[in-house]
Amino acid sequence: MPDFTDKLRPSQPDGPSTLAKEREQSNISTEELGKHLLSSDGFLERQARILPILQQEEILSKTKQQNLSRPERFKLGLVRAKLLRRLSDKYKWSHDDYKMAEYLVDDVSPYFLHMEMFITTIREQASEEQRAYWVPLIESWKIIGAYAQTELGHGSNVRGLELEARWDSQTKEFVIHSPTLTASKWWNGSLGRVANHAIVVAQLLLPEPDSDRFVSHGPHPFIVQVRDMKTHLPLEGIVVGDIGPKYGYITMDNAYMLFDHCRVPHSALLSRYSNVNPETGLYTKPAQPAVVYGSLTYVRANIVHHARLVLARAVTVATRYTTVRRQFQDRDGDKRGPELSVLDYPTVQIRILPLLATTFALHYTGQAMRTVYQNAREDIEKGDFKSLAYMHSMSSGLKSLCTMLAADGIESCRRAMGGHGFGGGSGLIQLNNDYLSKPTVEGDNWMITQQVAGYLIKKMGAAVEGEGKGGDEMDARFRAFAREKHAGGLSWGHDILNSDRDIVKSFELRATALAYDAYEQRVIKKKDWNSLLIQLHKLSRAQSQSIMVTTFFEALSADKTLSASIKTILWDLYRLFALNTMENEGYDFFRFSAISQSDLDALPTRIQDLMSRIRPHAVKLVDSWMIPDYLLDSGGNSALGRYDGRVYEDLFNRAHRLNPLNRITFNPNYWEDEIVKGSGVEWSEILSKL
Amino acid sequence: MPDFTDKLRPSQPDGPSTLAKEREQSNISTEELGKHLLSSDGFLERQARILPILQQEEILSKTKQQNLSRPERFKLGLVRAKLLRRLSDKYKWSHDDYKMAEYLVDDVSPYFLHMEMFITTIREQASEEQRAYWVPLIESWKIIGAYAQTELGHGSNVRGLELEARWDSQTKEFVIHSPTLTASKWWNGSLGRVANHAIVVAQLLLPEPDSDRFVSHGPHPFIVQVRDMKTHLPLEGIVVGDIGPKYGYITMDNAYMLFDHCRVPHSALLSRYSNVNPETGLYTKPAQPAVVYGSLTYVRANIVHHARLVLARAVTVATRYTTVRRQFQDRDGDKRGPELSVLDYPTVQIRILPLLATTFALHYTGQAMRTVYQNAREDIEKGDFKSLAYMHSMSSGLKSLCTMLAADGIESCRRAMGGHGFGGGSGLIQLNNDYLSKPTVEGDNWMITQQVAGYLIKKMGAAVEGEGKGGDEMDARFRAFAREKHAGGLSWGHDILNSDRDIVKSFELRATALAYDAYEQRVIKKKDWNSLLIQLHKLSRAQSQSIMVTTFFEALSADKTLSASIKTILWDLYRLFALNTMENEGYDFFRFSAISQSDLDALPTRIQDLMSRIRPHAVKLVDSWMIPDYLLDSGGNSALGRYDGRVYEDLFNRAHRLNPLNRITFNPNYWEDEIVKGSGVEWSEILSKL
Repeated sequence: MPDFTDKLRPSQPDGPSTLAKEREQSNISTEELGKHLLSSDGFLERQARILPILQQEEILSKTKQQNLSRPERFKLGLVRAKLLRRLSDKYKWSHDDYKMAEYLVDDVSPYFLHMEMFITTIREQASEEQRAYWVPLIESWKIIGAYAQTELGHGSNVRGLELEARWDSQTKEFVIHSPTLTASKWWNGSLGRVANHAIVVAQLLLPEPDSDRFVSHGPHPFIVQVRDMKTHLPLEGIVVGDIGPKYGYITMDNAYMLFDHCRVPHSALLSRYSNVNPETGLYTKPAQPAVVYGSLTYVRANIVHHARLVLARAVTVATRYTTVRRQFQDRDGDKRGPELSVLDYPTVQIRILPLLATTFALHYTGQAMRTVYQNAREDIEKGDFKSLAYMHSMSSGLKSLCTMLAADGIESCRRAMGGHGFGGGSGLIQLNNDYLSKPTVEGDNWMITQQVAGYLIKKMGAAVEGEGKGGDEMDARFRAFAREKHAGGLSWGHDILNSDRDIVKSFELRATALAYDAYEQRVIKKKDWNSLLIQLHKLSRAQSQSIMVTTFFEALSADKTLSASIKTILWDLYRLFALNTMENEGYDFFRFSAISQSDLDALPTRIQDLMSRIRPHAVKLVDSWMIPDYLLDSGGNSALGRYDGRVYEDLFNRAHRLNPLNRITFNPNYWEDEIVKGSGVEWSEILSKL
Repeated sequence: MPDFTDKLRPSQPDGPSTLAKEREQSNISTEELGKHLLSSDGFLERQARILPILQQEEILSKTKQQNLSRPERFKLGLVRAKLLRRLSDKYKWSHDDYKMAEYLVDDVSPYFLHMEMFITTIREQASEEQRAYWVPLIESWKIIGAYAQTELGHGSNVRGLELEARWDSQTKEFVIHSPTLTASKWWNGSLGRVANHAIVVAQLLLPEPDSDRFVSHGPHPFIVQVRDMKTHLPLEGIVVGDIGPKYGYITMDNAYMLFDHCRVPHSALLSRYSNVNPETGLYTKPAQPAVVYGSLTYVRANIVHHARLVLARAVTVATRYTTVRRQFQDRDGDKRGPELSVLDYPTVQIRILPLLATTFALHYTGQAMRTVYQNAREDIEKGDFKSLAYMHSMSSGLKSLCTMLAADGIESCRRAMGGHGFGGGSGLIQLNNDYLSKPTVEGDNWMITQQVAGYLIKKMGAAVEGEGKGGDEMDARFRAFAREKHAGGLSWGHDILNSDRDIVKSFELRATALAYDAYEQRVIKKKDWNSLLIQLHKLSRAQSQSIMVTTFFEALSADKTLSASIKTILWDLYRLFALNTMENEGYDFFRFSAISQSDLDALPTRIQDLMSRIRPHAVKLVDSWMIPDYLLDSGGNSALGRYDGRVYEDLFNRAHRLNPLNRITFNPNYWEDEIVKGSGVEWSEILSKL
């Protein structure tokens, strides 16, 4: 309906002119930098190819989805997920193409677990015969599967799972049974309403030879049909459903599931690595127990690699919006010009620009993590397990650090945008809600750092007690540290303000010193492990920060192709990321002589200088992440983060033209029961929904 | 529907037995501590009286509200708000009683602004005649009002507001007009769908004498009717509506509003402090411009005072749940007993127990803030403005620090609860979503710290340049610091590990030294204000931390009534709050000699010792906040935070018996359009909602 607001425009200078000026003032090529970041595995080409297909589909329009209830939103999510599979068939998408579509649609798919943990577990844990049977059914989506491991009472402690799979030697079946309420499966994605099959992880209970007692051989994976293929109702003896609304993941049917003495055949046990002899009831255990956890490392490595794009989204929105947004004139400056872009205030810069630098740090670290994973995987396939421990330690520490950086970073960006950051047009609400699962899933961020510390303590022990030769770079560094420590002299004199390489050394020294401390406490002084947990968490964090700084430095040092203008700004981003991290934990560096007091005191000024140098390129830097408007905002094409800067027009359009609440006229008189004017909506109707 | 899960129980030891044991092992009286914290202004008595009334009302049941859409949820919020006013009439509630009901119902009321900013502004800014006319209409809810200040383009910079109120000397009216889109009012609560009146803040434009030019006399408040009293539709020339879904505040109709040359009478200008002569068009300005901002300080002081209860809620949930939750046995301990409560791990303690200590710090600070406000208000009513600057500085700094502590604290608690912290039973989702507005509203947390810094720089300037006598404690401290600084000697030797008073001095020293630094940079070295903003923010934070530590210390020192057992634990909480704050910003204390290096190195161990001492009392300490289960969880009576510890039974009940999604059977076959099995729901139906 036309009204007088149609002719109104935002005050000048408006968003488009502001962003145009920003883009003019920087000499870096977003095309070159974008290719550098995103072309290696065909990402950019794929995004450009898939996006237009999705944009044609009305069902994928995000404009009004924030207004739906959970059940409506779930239906929409399922419709979209079905569509994606149909598009995949139609356009003969590869798996990577399909993943790109899922990423751009930005709904957590109810089929997500089917396509990830379900098929991966079958591929990795099923026998050849089992794979031959199941894989075609899975790939064609004739069956839909989930992965049911976590229970109501147990998550991190997998060995503590309570669900039982008891071998019945008479019938040659396993009897799956939930002995307690806490044995209920819980959180298992795709299983609450959708999947008809699941990998069910249960304690394998076998009779002791010549006894009527059963003993557990620990948790094992079984493939179990849980719903009827026609009626889609749970099979007898199974109670399964969706656990209800959560912080995020509104389109995912996370499940609870219990079993009442359900019988499954011998072939249900996935038997690539371990098996039960159906005749004797005897157990064959895996040669290398660690291989069972291979897929967990894969998932963690993926999370690390994905963090850059998550944070880049938030930083893109925040950078563009805080450039367009103006507030106050310079207190000491010219009062006649326009108000300042809020990104010109150092108090806004300090919240956004180090995160912008972090997106690049996450990029190089994600690449390094992926390489380490691929190499280790190749070794393992050849039966060589030597890289497993390092890969596991690296992926655990980085999963913890990188998801924390991304999750906290999204919220920092949101807050830095002030009031409009709290609004539905921020584009960060669903991102935040969904991503806040990441610090917990696939290994709680605080819990898994023990795995890093355990690895480093072992390494340090070998360095202190060992022969003084061989090993990798870390072994040599640990030995050198132990020698100097022993000799009583520890002066390193890193010139972190003038040498980029010395920054790396400073981070290494601090991580090494913390590793030595932890070794001393645990191995020499025999302290209780649990009493050291805070210290061990700090060690893992320091080690992972050191990896991030090192990979960033090495990537820039090794590069021979980037133009000078981009190289210069990337080095500044490297310094900003490293020095800002250092300043936040300054004393930790100081007490190990990894930084001098005068350098530490100089950091705030140096950081502010670096931010001033980066500021003019900020918009072009986020442009280089090439995140389409279509993705920037889960609640409709992006308002605050729009590429064109038409922030205020978009916010107004959403409020005035798209908000369904404005089609209802309410009655404010408290003495009248009528809520919606003229419709006769009464309290009883509202009560019926409670 | 009964099924086999009905007879299942959680594994042992279960929640109730665990919490019973926790409560037995601590000797503190929750009744005594509860009274100490909450009885002074009748809070406990009021809570006990109002709660049973609310619990009888079906419409206030929170069980299923998480499943509603925004429009449904808004209707529910409006019904509830009407009910509260009816109950208020029925039971003859005082304003404090009504606020208690609002607090316990935990929906942001669509009438919130009517009861707060609208009536407060009329009381403070309206002339006697205006008050006589409007106050009865407001108190009887015959009219419903809102407060419309913030615009699409301007929030913090009030002087930059674009809406115009131009005096028409012919008709003796003001013409209210939005010249641009960014002049649209924005964010104004209660106005989007409900209010029919509003305080509208607009630039007062008056003709220059003997000229046809208009000049602005700055933003002024007008009372304007915006909707028809019968049809509830906007009046002609006004476009007003709800801005759409947000991060939280789902039941609040935050508004946008524009005016097309709307005429209001001369009496619309609230004229207690400033006025326009209707005959001459001449402006009378307020004697003390600062009084206009009095209500902002009031709101900030209230936010500071309320923060303790917000954080106490999150900490109550986290403490109870992490006690009930068990995971892993002690790696170095007995393997035969039950798994450890996760709160026994130092890595969980370090995330929750300092926040538990913070609830008490917030309590004493909130009390102190309230006292300062009340005293200053009394002075101001008497025409004495000397306390205004201190009150404004204190409320700004504390609003920034305390809302940051509470907002970040909720999220820390949520993450510390692992997977179930992400679920709808955490009870922290709506709390988090709603409270995340607080770091931004009523003065952005980063922006307003300038007001603290400005005040301290002025004080330090007076101390350096002044006569060396008079003033308050801070003046004396600043003078002492300036003298010693001048004399070149700054050794203080605080024994923070052994003297509780020295902890206070250490915080004071650091804040004073930062104030001196800021003074030096700004006044002596004439640095640009904006270039100092990060430093000024740190100064405000340090000053506010110092106030929190000091008020905590002084409250405990002054107390003569508490029992020894409670006093002992409160001192430990004081130390934990102060030393943990100190450790997090350790270098900042070290560089000003506010802590020695050996003390700083000893802090982690001391903090862990304090946590071990507090741990056995943790459950009783949160019990003392007396937060009813009714309030703990906005999504239904509390699951994770239940007083009785029946966490798993409750989570299961919500999922299996209350979740509406489980009443729908979905069809997972992607080649079939049918989404809901048997109902014939087609894509087109879902599309129609987009």
